[in-house]
Amino acid sequence: MPSDALPDDPLPSWHDGRTKRAILDFIARVTKQGGPDYAPPAERIAVFDNDGTLWAEKPVYFQAQFALDEIARKAKENPALARQEPYRSVLAKDLKALTADNHKGLLQTLAVTHANMTTEEFASRVQDWLKTARHPVTKRPYTEMVYQPQLELLALLGKTGFRTFIVSGGGVEFMRVFADKVYGVPPERVVGSSDVVTFRMGKDGKPELYKTAKVEFVDDGPGKPVGINRFIGRRPILAFGNSDGDLQMLQYVTGGAGPRLGLLVHHTDGAREWAYDRKSPVGKLDKALDEAGARGWTVVDMKQDWKEVFPPAP
Amino acid sequence: MPSDALPDDPLPSWHDGRTKRAILDFIARVTKQGGPDYAPPAERIAVFDNDGTLWAEKPVYFQAQFALDEIARKAKENPALARQEPYRSVLAKDLKALTADNHKGLLQTLAVTHANMTTEEFASRVQDWLKTARHPVTKRPYTEMVYQPQLELLALLGKTGFRTFIVSGGGVEFMRVFADKVYGVPPERVVGSSDVVTFRMGKDGKPELYKTAKVEFVDDGPGKPVGINRFIGRRPILAFGNSDGDLQMLQYVTGGAGPRLGLLVHHTDGAREWAYDRKSPVGKLDKALDEAGARGWTVVDMKQDWKEVFPPAP
Ligand SMILES: [Ca+2]
Ligand SMILES: [Ca+2]
Repeated sequence: MPSDALPDDPLPSWHDGRTKRAILDFIARVTKQGGPDYAPPAERIAVFDNDGTLWAEKPVYFQAQFALDEIARKAKENPALARQEPYRSVLAKDLKALTADNHKGLLQTLAVTHANMTTEEFASRVQDWLKTARHPVTKRPYTEMVYQPQLELLALLGKTGFRTFIVSGGGVEFMRVFADKVYGVPPERVVGSSDVVTFRMGKDGKPELYKTAKVEFVDDGPGKPVGINRFIGRRPILAFGNSDGDLQMLQYVTGGAGPRLGLLVHHTDGAREWAYDRKSPVGKLDKALDEAGARGWTVVDMKQDWKEVFPPAP
Repeated sequence: MPSDALPDDPLPSWHDGRTKRAILDFIARVTKQGGPDYAPPAERIAVFDNDGTLWAEKPVYFQAQFALDEIARKAKENPALARQEPYRSVLAKDLKALTADNHKGLLQTLAVTHANMTTEEFASRVQDWLKTARHPVTKRPYTEMVYQPQLELLALLGKTGFRTFIVSGGGVEFMRVFADKVYGVPPERVVGSSDVVTFRMGKDGKPELYKTAKVEFVDDGPGKPVGINRFIGRRPILAFGNSDGDLQMLQYVTGGAGPRLGLLVHHTDGAREWAYDRKSPVGKLDKALDEAGARGWTVVDMKQDWKEVFPPAP
């Protein structure tokens, strides 16, 4: 890594220590031409989980909050809806009703907020929501609930010839709305879960893509290496996750020959963020934490390793 | 387009004329900063069909030839197979038997040559085949059956800030083996048809991806805009195809706002290549040719527009 191309400290929000050294050493090794661990630029692919790895995921996944807010917005626009399901149960916060009958209510909630519209329509709903929605605890826009140390790492990887991808269980059409602006990751480098989309001619005679309610792909757990193969077609050399949903992705990435770096965010900071791991319903980190030692993955201790968690308010 | 960055004639294998001018004008317009048609680099996405657009497709699709050659190779290695289906019918060139019962024999042929192995194993089969197989007419390796004018166009687009993608009905795992070397299109910019791939732990305890015989996605016809949305997540501004399988892709790409370029290769050169269109079972060009006029797509007349068809032997 040519030092003249980078600032003195390219990761200023990371405390000096074992974790930061592991990251900087890895980048230095794979970019050192003629070195034993040199990786040509084509091989420098880094994959990042999103929820809990690049941005927060508490108290609920932000995409789930989008769905709940959409239900409220639609019911406000059309009050008759409030008497129908799933609106009634969502508005009453009746989790028991929503999860009954194999989560029928939650699936209906997803369908009415995420499907039966064009991809452009959906993107504009997400855009509108991101403009006005605020996180219930910090009162900040959700796009400011991203981790400053990770923004620095994404930028550093970009400067050192890596192509960074998001590989997340979140919806691909949801993430693509903000990933470029917030993370510098363009739409074609976002891999996520998806519904079946169909091509059709719109009422105006113009071609359009229509988002149906049928699940096409779940980019989580064993789906992550599958998604990586499908979209990227090459085994990355760096993977960063935070939960058991990233276990197979880390196994796959670090299971290849040559230099590999596996990383996990461990949410240990109950003061500045949230502290959770083995027993959390959201972002459960249990098996992957156990495997980290045996497989040589680097566990980022949020409390110890990060000087800052969120970026300063703009 | 800064002329000092490009050779005097960036498309030397294209005859001067309306077609070449349409291409060069488009690139000049979308790259002219401050111009009315300027497209920022992020929007400069160009999609290319593969069979019949970037390389030849006669007498049969090259991937189909791969499957037939694999059957022969396997039967040679294990002569007992020659008495079983689909080997017997393939070796006997018994097309009637292969297509009977809803193409059962052809589907079996695909299954035994393309499935039930890891993605790495499949890639190495394709690699071996590309090394030794020769085109039945020209006797050249299949990777030399690419169109020289298109190699020049891909290079020109790369130099003018475009990201080029392949969007083909061919198998994604098949094309990724050679697309980078032959076209300069890396694996993550190849979109194609695919089988379901599953993640598992291999016998050696190492994670692997296993290719099953279950079709996952057919990237043809209306599947092409769907594939573009899934993999690229943004509407390209240039699309190049050669058959009715590209109709919806061209409709979608040229149906967006702002400057758009739709192109079709018309195979008119029976002397240097093959002449076929409306009635060809392979690469049928009929509806898309009819729509080209109404929608302002540029039809490349291979005989008139291309000085060279294939690259010189290396
Ligand atoms: Ca996560
Ligand atoms: Ca074609």
